[in-house]
Amino acid sequence: MTFNFLLDDLNRSLSQKTIGTDKGLAKLGDSIVNLAYSMAKSIYLTRNNQNNRIIRTGNKVSKIILAEALKNAELKPFAKNRGDAHDMADTVEGIVAYVWLSNKMSLDEIIEVLWKSLSGDFSNRTQEIEIARNAFTVLLNVMKKFLPDH
Amino acid sequence: MTFNFLLDDLNRSLSQKTIGTDKGLAKLGDSIVNLAYSMAKSIYLTRNNQNNRIIRTGNKVSKIILAEALKNAELKPFAKNRGDAHDMADTVEGIVAYVWLSNKMSLDEIIEVLWKSLSGDFSNRTQEIEIARNAFTVLLNVMKKFLPDH
Repeated sequence: MTFNFLLDDLNRSLSQKTIGTDKGLAKLGDSIVNLAYSMAKSIYLTRNNQNNRIIRTGNKVSKIILAEALKNAELKPFAKNRGDAHDMADTVEGIVAYVWLSNKMSLDEIIEVLWKSLSGDFSNRTQEIEIARNAFTVLLNVMKKFLPDH
Repeated sequence: MTFNFLLDDLNRSLSQKTIGTDKGLAKLGDSIVNLAYSMAKSIYLTRNNQNNRIIRTGNKVSKIILAEALKNAELKPFAKNRGDAHDMADTVEGIVAYVWLSNKMSLDEIIEVLWKSLSGDFSNRTQEIEIARNAFTVLLNVMKKFLPDH
């Protein structure tokens, strides 16, 4: 089953701003982002610990991390003009939801891009923020080719 | 790609309580539950409004709703003994994560079971709680066959 009919109205007048400023798309994207990051982190920690332990974990990704990833990937034009960090995070969530709902990338593929972009030490909170910001920047760069030019 | 290696330790000593009381599994399940319900609600509202509007939305499913669904589906034995509503909600999240991670049901299938179980009026908050509780009860009943007997 495909859910891309949930994009029908957006696709009729598709632009960077329609994707990046749609409230409902951001809400859907919020849970996709959290699930994908929680899975990526669980996979990374399970594959990279000394004791062969299985580590399952979950995280809400902070708005600051997403906002910075948007800037790093040079996708600020998708966001509301003069938007704050919260608006820019919503834009990232909207982009992720758009790419997933339009079947350009599956959830598995999103998870894979994220976990392959993780590296370093998660026990240090400051470093985790940097790791996550980098992974979402990579993800947005991968997603660029599925997004409108203007 | 399959992520079921994240269940390797649980599968070695699988029981209702191992699935229902694992903190990490519940954390992963939290975002699956929220994503699946947000999608189900968006699909339902889009298909059932007078004006052919596309409605995208997102919701965090409340712990109370999940705890009641657990009781309704008679899956309380999976939860911690003398657990409160929060513990029982974690148990639902753990069950959903277990079924998804072990590839018994895809995310699409989970979404489909939920939205097909929705009915009634979402504009009334009390009724939405009842609708959601019913949908998660149906989902848990579908998932039962994938769960251990004791």
